[in-house]
Amino acid sequence: MPFSINEYAERIQKTKEQMVKEGVEVLLLSDPANMYYLSGYDGWSFYVPQLLVVILEEEQPLWIGRAQDANGARLTVWFHPDRIIPYSDEYVQSDERHPMDFVADILTQIGQAKRRFGVEMDAYYFTARSYERLRTGLPDACFQDATLLVNRIRMIKSSQEIDYMKRAGQIAERAMQTAMNTIAAGVRECDAAAAISHAQISGTSEYGGDYPAIVPLLPSGEKTSTPHLTWTDRRYRAGEAVIVELAGCYRRYHAPLARTAVIGTPSPLVRELAEVVAEGLNAALEVAAPGVSCEEVEAAWRQSIQKRGFKKESRLGYSVGLNYPPDWGEHTASIRAGDQTTLQPNMTFHLIPGIWLDSCGVEFSETFRVTGTGCETLSCFPRELVQRPAIPGIVPSLEESGA
Amino acid sequence: MPFSINEYAERIQKTKEQMVKEGVEVLLLSDPANMYYLSGYDGWSFYVPQLLVVILEEEQPLWIGRAQDANGARLTVWFHPDRIIPYSDEYVQSDERHPMDFVADILTQIGQAKRRFGVEMDAYYFTARSYERLRTGLPDACFQDATLLVNRIRMIKSSQEIDYMKRAGQIAERAMQTAMNTIAAGVRECDAAAAISHAQISGTSEYGGDYPAIVPLLPSGEKTSTPHLTWTDRRYRAGEAVIVELAGCYRRYHAPLARTAVIGTPSPLVRELAEVVAEGLNAALEVAAPGVSCEEVEAAWRQSIQKRGFKKESRLGYSVGLNYPPDWGEHTASIRAGDQTTLQPNMTFHLIPGIWLDSCGVEFSETFRVTGTGCETLSCFPRELVQRPAIPGIVPSLEESGA
Repeated sequence: MPFSINEYAERIQKTKEQMVKEGVEVLLLSDPANMYYLSGYDGWSFYVPQLLVVILEEEQPLWIGRAQDANGARLTVWFHPDRIIPYSDEYVQSDERHPMDFVADILTQIGQAKRRFGVEMDAYYFTARSYERLRTGLPDACFQDATLLVNRIRMIKSSQEIDYMKRAGQIAERAMQTAMNTIAAGVRECDAAAAISHAQISGTSEYGGDYPAIVPLLPSGEKTSTPHLTWTDRRYRAGEAVIVELAGCYRRYHAPLARTAVIGTPSPLVRELAEVVAEGLNAALEVAAPGVSCEEVEAAWRQSIQKRGFKKESRLGYSVGLNYPPDWGEHTASIRAGDQTTLQPNMTFHLIPGIWLDSCGVEFSETFRVTGTGCETLSCFPRELVQRPAIPGIVPSLEESGA
Repeated sequence: MPFSINEYAERIQKTKEQMVKEGVEVLLLSDPANMYYLSGYDGWSFYVPQLLVVILEEEQPLWIGRAQDANGARLTVWFHPDRIIPYSDEYVQSDERHPMDFVADILTQIGQAKRRFGVEMDAYYFTARSYERLRTGLPDACFQDATLLVNRIRMIKSSQEIDYMKRAGQIAERAMQTAMNTIAAGVRECDAAAAISHAQISGTSEYGGDYPAIVPLLPSGEKTSTPHLTWTDRRYRAGEAVIVELAGCYRRYHAPLARTAVIGTPSPLVRELAEVVAEGLNAALEVAAPGVSCEEVEAAWRQSIQKRGFKKESRLGYSVGLNYPPDWGEHTASIRAGDQTTLQPNMTFHLIPGIWLDSCGVEFSETFRVTGTGCETLSCFPRELVQRPAIPGIVPSLEESGA
């Protein structure tokens, strides 16, 4: 098990305290990260409906999922196997039956039909139909939104979680080094992505990597003007910038990291962007400390780049850690104007400053942990442009390229 | 663009015909596969709400998504850039604003507030809250479920789509060969997964691989009793079975493939299971042809394994092709009792027969295309157990192991 029984008990305790505050008697969790956080269940089965049920009066949660995944639950959860309730395959992707019909029946059978339920209204794997079928199946129940109830508890990490994230940070470093050793004129984007993925999953000799919640993002050339297109089998060309955004992942905990490579000699504009982004990132990291608000961290970045005549519209960062596809962010605090969340020790954030112009973009990012007095980054990789060969086999030196 | 303008126009036409049949005037698509199918948009941005809007009277759809992804849409969709409508970052993961508030406003501004909308009630990225906010923002509209409207159109593939799936099939073969070359006693599960992932993404020398919608699934030892746990950094041990389920993916089109390795000498029981599964798979493939129903294909498998005294509770297969995480299945037809979908030429299915006992399990799978007269598989890999070294560096011959 990735965490001690005590740690799970503490998490359940905090969850129940929050349930009481919000008036929730039975919490239905469909976010796989929240299911893993409270139960230990870790399988690629979130493509069918499944739930962890926390009942205020009961010590152990219930896992409800597909029959073929029940053995997976038995092998991974900390609680008694009696608490694992499988539904049969006739509920899977059927026109007639929905897994939430089964869930409503079970909740009725165990006397929970008239409770006040909290549901994760905006979690990825809790669909509009899931909610409708639950409401239909439990007509005497009350429902309220509990979307980020557990996510908020997850914001402050335990020492074991920090340890996992530091391992993820080391994996991210290695994967970034692999990326920077691979990208060059003539290399296919897919081959760079393949090398990165190999490094992410293989991990270090001491601990293997887990699958990150997002694939490597490698916009190059004109695509650096947009962050989320994925690779093709096009070959890199001299003169292009390549943004590399990836994460190391260990036991579902992420440490994302972004850097920018230039194939050949960077243009004066790209050089300037790189300086501005690195300065702004450093300014934000200098400010990040317990007691400081998220918006104050963003302000430090904004002031830094404003001095150089730049601005960025989108948010600067977000709380990060445990997650499953399609996102490694925790959906709680954002580093942006208006977010007054106060930084506390062992909160962890991904600061992803980037500036995109019409023709090019530069990103450098860091994942940091709030310490007792400031912050520390989880990876160690120079915050500067990486120059890569413009002619296959020849690496330009900084002198040659005029740096 | 992955498809011709004509092919997109045909898809839109078929979609509108189905909308008319179902009484839908405006279709709101949030399934990223359906968005890609009708627009060409392909980015890892489905972790924020986004929509493709098909209005019955308008030739071109609308793309509505996050501002930083609008450039990605401009680079990938076939229609006019005026049809791309970005929302600002203040809607992202905010306590106050939801992207669907923006969508409702836009639909109102363009005179669609009182229409009959089709929404994908059970699509992964259409949450319960998305639906609530849409209904609140469009109080005079009617809503009805259109979950599989486009998925059903996707079931019969065009020749271009079949071409992409055949490439995916070749990538799957290579990835499976890599898996079987890597797995051995003493090797870490994560290093096998890393090698597979590398092969999947690198693809062939002619065409690079895309990211599959599911990570490699590699249950080994006692975990072969459950299909969806992912790898760890544990080392393989002599005597274990390892099930390898993976897909090749090309331009979002998948060809999944599963095989089973045994480290060292397989037990008589595992040998028997392998024979039974291979015979049953062959029996099902022999029956699959135009005019035959999904349940008849399943029956051929069931009768074959029943003769040997075995049964399998879960479904035998499903329609497969275009998709995004977390699933490569299309959620339409299933190969199981009760599914009377009739096979037609250029439908594609993943047949995933496996038998799991308490102590071990064996799976062999094939992705097949329905041809004019029967079916053809998209990968070519022997349907038999693969024996792998039990002592690092030594491969047992079939004779030595008593085969």
